[in-house]
Amino acid sequence: MHPFADLTAAEIGRARNIVQTQHPKTLLSFKAITLEEPPKILMLEYLAAEHSGTTAPCPDRIAYCAYYFRGTTRFFSALVNLSTSEVQETEHKGDGIHGNVDFDEVLEVEKAVMKCPEVQAEIARLMLPDHLEVIPEPWGFGSDGVSDLNRCFQVYMFVREKGNPDSNHYARPLAFSPIFDPVAMKLVKIQHISTSAGHDVGKPDTYKETSPNEYIPSEVALRGDLEPLQVVQPNGPSFKISKDRVLKWQKWHMRLGFNYREGLVLRDVCYDGQPLFYRISLSEMCVPYADPRSPYHRKMAFDLGDVGAGMVCNNLKLGCDCLGSIAYLGGLVCNRDGQPVLKDNAICIHEQDNGIGWKHTNYRTDNAFVVRNRELVIQTILTVSNYEYILMFIFNQAGDIEYQVRATGILSTSAIDEGVTVDFGTVVHPGVLAAHHQHILSLRIDPLIGSYSHGNTAVKQEAEAMPLDDYNPHGNGYRVVKSDITTEGGHDLDWAKSRVFSVKNPHMLNPVNGLPISYKLMFPPVPPLLSHPSSFNAKRAEFADHHLYVTKYRPDELFSGGKFTNQSRGDSGIKNWIAKHQADTADEDIVIWVQFGLNHVPRIEDFPVMPVETVSVHLKPANFFSRNPAIDVPPSTQATNRSVLVQKDTECCKL
Amino acid sequence: MHPFADLTAAEIGRARNIVQTQHPKTLLSFKAITLEEPPKILMLEYLAAEHSGTTAPCPDRIAYCAYYFRGTTRFFSALVNLSTSEVQETEHKGDGIHGNVDFDEVLEVEKAVMKCPEVQAEIARLMLPDHLEVIPEPWGFGSDGVSDLNRCFQVYMFVREKGNPDSNHYARPLAFSPIFDPVAMKLVKIQHISTSAGHDVGKPDTYKETSPNEYIPSEVALRGDLEPLQVVQPNGPSFKISKDRVLKWQKWHMRLGFNYREGLVLRDVCYDGQPLFYRISLSEMCVPYADPRSPYHRKMAFDLGDVGAGMVCNNLKLGCDCLGSIAYLGGLVCNRDGQPVLKDNAICIHEQDNGIGWKHTNYRTDNAFVVRNRELVIQTILTVSNYEYILMFIFNQAGDIEYQVRATGILSTSAIDEGVTVDFGTVVHPGVLAAHHQHILSLRIDPLIGSYSHGNTAVKQEAEAMPLDDYNPHGNGYRVVKSDITTEGGHDLDWAKSRVFSVKNPHMLNPVNGLPISYKLMFPPVPPLLSHPSSFNAKRAEFADHHLYVTKYRPDELFSGGKFTNQSRGDSGIKNWIAKHQADTADEDIVIWVQFGLNHVPRIEDFPVMPVETVSVHLKPANFFSRNPAIDVPPSTQATNRSVLVQKDTECCKL
Repeated sequence: MHPFADLTAAEIGRARNIVQTQHPKTLLSFKAITLEEPPKILMLEYLAAEHSGTTAPCPDRIAYCAYYFRGTTRFFSALVNLSTSEVQETEHKGDGIHGNVDFDEVLEVEKAVMKCPEVQAEIARLMLPDHLEVIPEPWGFGSDGVSDLNRCFQVYMFVREKGNPDSNHYARPLAFSPIFDPVAMKLVKIQHISTSAGHDVGKPDTYKETSPNEYIPSEVALRGDLEPLQVVQPNGPSFKISKDRVLKWQKWHMRLGFNYREGLVLRDVCYDGQPLFYRISLSEMCVPYADPRSPYHRKMAFDLGDVGAGMVCNNLKLGCDCLGSIAYLGGLVCNRDGQPVLKDNAICIHEQDNGIGWKHTNYRTDNAFVVRNRELVIQTILTVSNYEYILMFIFNQAGDIEYQVRATGILSTSAIDEGVTVDFGTVVHPGVLAAHHQHILSLRIDPLIGSYSHGNTAVKQEAEAMPLDDYNPHGNGYRVVKSDITTEGGHDLDWAKSRVFSVKNPHMLNPVNGLPISYKLMFPPVPPLLSHPSSFNAKRAEFADHHLYVTKYRPDELFSGGKFTNQSRGDSGIKNWIAKHQADTADEDIVIWVQFGLNHVPRIEDFPVMPVETVSVHLKPANFFSRNPAIDVPPSTQATNRSVLVQKDTECCKL
Repeated sequence: MHPFADLTAAEIGRARNIVQTQHPKTLLSFKAITLEEPPKILMLEYLAAEHSGTTAPCPDRIAYCAYYFRGTTRFFSALVNLSTSEVQETEHKGDGIHGNVDFDEVLEVEKAVMKCPEVQAEIARLMLPDHLEVIPEPWGFGSDGVSDLNRCFQVYMFVREKGNPDSNHYARPLAFSPIFDPVAMKLVKIQHISTSAGHDVGKPDTYKETSPNEYIPSEVALRGDLEPLQVVQPNGPSFKISKDRVLKWQKWHMRLGFNYREGLVLRDVCYDGQPLFYRISLSEMCVPYADPRSPYHRKMAFDLGDVGAGMVCNNLKLGCDCLGSIAYLGGLVCNRDGQPVLKDNAICIHEQDNGIGWKHTNYRTDNAFVVRNRELVIQTILTVSNYEYILMFIFNQAGDIEYQVRATGILSTSAIDEGVTVDFGTVVHPGVLAAHHQHILSLRIDPLIGSYSHGNTAVKQEAEAMPLDDYNPHGNGYRVVKSDITTEGGHDLDWAKSRVFSVKNPHMLNPVNGLPISYKLMFPPVPPLLSHPSSFNAKRAEFADHHLYVTKYRPDELFSGGKFTNQSRGDSGIKNWIAKHQADTADEDIVIWVQFGLNHVPRIEDFPVMPVETVSVHLKPANFFSRNPAIDVPPSTQATNRSVLVQKDTECCKL
């Protein structure tokens, strides 16, 4: 078995049993059983050997396990060596460290909340019309330093059409919210919520019925003039996936992994036999909301750390989530009993045409040479309660990797009185407020530019006007200045300086122009965290204040917001690692962290389901190759593309 | 005939004849005969009537003509009223105002240059091997205030394989450049060019043969593992184009126009019967180069003003430039004799699938609702000597318009000695330097948000942290602040403030949330012009210093770099209009100018043909509609999409 292979069902079962043996008389609730990242120092040797056809020692298989003593707050992590069947390490976590939320827990809380007499009394008070029913939506409690030490859920309450469980309850939010303790399994209290612009909570009232705003097709008059569009690949796709999940396509080679937290992980990404990246994955995403009123001041989801991208990934469906010739891969997670659970069709892989790849027409001969831009897409889609995130690694034939995120799904809403407006949100439906919020994603890029044995250096490149002098007498001159990033820290984009970041291998020079081989990182600048520096949001989302962080590689630093984010108090993420180590990063084993995303100021057009909002990080070769890597793509011709002429209108330009 | 209809061939011929009658004994060289934009004040009335089924007066058909007395520097413009067959206005342009470059002129110059004995002597001096031949490439001369008053061409010289006219001469630049006067039809001088990092021109030498770097498929070992991918639309496309070029698709309605300068022009763009934009077109694009040495200090192309997007657009080919079911439209320009010339297949129109449009999975029922993001693409492709620009208007079902530009083609190159490096360019092949350069595009957007009769206002929106106080005790709060742009001027993006620009109709409020209906403008910030403010580059590219300009609408202000850019001295573009008028822009008839593009620091991967570099401006409704306009798109299903399952691998995650 390859050291990067995800844990099999049998391995998950064995890990569970070994852990359970440690606690023979205790019922455990497992939060995670997953592959512990094998030591990089061994893996670099292993991969170099693997690619050169020799062998190197294979690291032991290690399972990382996280679990509670069921029904208590006692939370542990353990490393189980599956090669030796021994527990290597067990750690009892302290107070204030909480495991992630899981589905079993959420569904249990939903049921329990609805059974509370206090909640039923609130519902009765609403005097709902017969056709409506109440639906709870538990959220991680968040942190404010006041009452957040116990593991809690803030349960937002909504109303939907009875008998239609896909009715859009987000269009009918209620103004009370139970706080529920999932350990003691009891209601902490019922919080009433302001529906005005201020903090004051009005007197609870009966429910004022508002109009629905449904999105499911059966409730909408659908447009009838959209003709089908199909993608046909008569010879099948151009990619191959081996049994152990090595994906090969158009000179690309990589190994696919999947875990409960990051979802899809790419390892050992190579082009034409040359290593580029050791590991790429989404490290974290935080979603802080702008509403300063309680309980929304705690509304700050860490979607990966609090829940897990692998835990909430969609079961992708043929004909819905992609077009063309598609491969699907599942992934394993575990349930609370530590049993393996299959996330079926968690990953889909297909090719797409993305327009023209390159073109030149020689005006002297009128000969046009054009190739199309074929791409390979590796996709997972997350549903985190209301929101959807479509996460795609996209590869092209020119050596580029795009990490594309599409935000869609439903806005998280709250009740607002008629006629009230606020500057921290948008009314998207009568009586419905959608607060502004940020989506700040943190992409972890572990580079291996050109070699398994060299250090890498991150580089900041800027363009600057040359001074007006004898060398630049007409003032058109400008130059590019590059500087190495030599110590750990955060950096920002600056369009006025045309700033671009890249990562180079200082030991390997391009044979044509002598520049160090490198990959550049292109991504749009978003505002960093808008919360106050003293806020818990800022303490918790340590990555969210800079567009780029560079750190020295250290094992166990995979999650830039910290390993345990659920109700975290902060101080366990990337800024703390840096403050502790202050390591050099020039010609070292480094990791690059790209922060990107959206400041989402809701439009009414984002409701009831928002059209995708797309944002991408591009990794592009910069003097890595010796020419355009896509120059050998066969030209685009009608013989293979078989397009159809539907109209040729020269009537009004007839000569 | 609709007042927006392009001039027909017959109208071009009539305009030419009417102008020629004014100058009975003079042979003319026409630079342009095109529709003069009809008066907006009349057209707003006309369009309002047209859409309500009534009638309004139809403006006269006017042709704008630009012409020289052939073989002289006497340059004129004239407005010819085709409805009355009268010349309304003739203007003799002063010294220093030059008409655009045209193909007839370029081809004539190429031939004449090669016949000059001085050029032949230079070529003989090279002592080229038998298999190589010299090829000239005339460039507009540019401006430096020194010797630029006469109309001139700077002719860059290259070498290519004899007998292969599609051989890539840009990989073999020469170090001399004839300057040629196309009026006197004679050589001004031969300029020798530095091949070191400095200004000194070395002693002319024999040609040192370098390796070729070919891109045409017959010269490249093509990859063999790319399988065909076809787009099939069994019922044909979803769009309709009327005889007079009204394009209807998925609630969109617009009128297509084409002219020699802007290429494609969209007019009267409506969604679901509501007007959005009066006119959208690319106004200008400038490409200043970073090399401070002569003659490159003058290398600053205005691709629209100097040449014309319509003049250089490609004849698009079925199966090459798009996939699927495609409509092609031609466009008319004129030749130097004033005769209409058809640019065949200048515009192509097709639909494409752009992934998921929106999706939500209800975790309670596991029901996923997903629609695909169908788009309509209206495309033209320009070849400006070495470079290609793929220009696309892309419409989707959520009310968005994207103006997408893909830069491709071949870098403009110069000779450089072995071992020399410079900070204003990249060596992309042995002996070949590609200088850094900017592509700054200026998109002209004439809005009509929601009404043919109201003023519009541009708005600057920012997000700011709330102060830490009783209203925001936990420091998470942030708010959105909007301010109207009330006077003409330039503005920049600012990511730290999350700044977004939009345009609103202050008279029409969203019925649900009371916000003024608006469209927002989303585009990535690029560095503005890097040339010195005192340079001719800065004087000429008046638009290139700010991301956004807002002006009051005035007739004849279509081109932000000025009407006559070829060898212009500047001071005739958008900054001058603003300085002159200083008009109010709140609730007025305004025009928005978006500047965007690339700072192109060449990589070796951009040679011999560069992979597309893509940049977009997005126009998105913001509280214009009352919900997601794509909510009524039929769901994505396997029944219509007919995708193919090629692999379902759960082997390594078997339970």
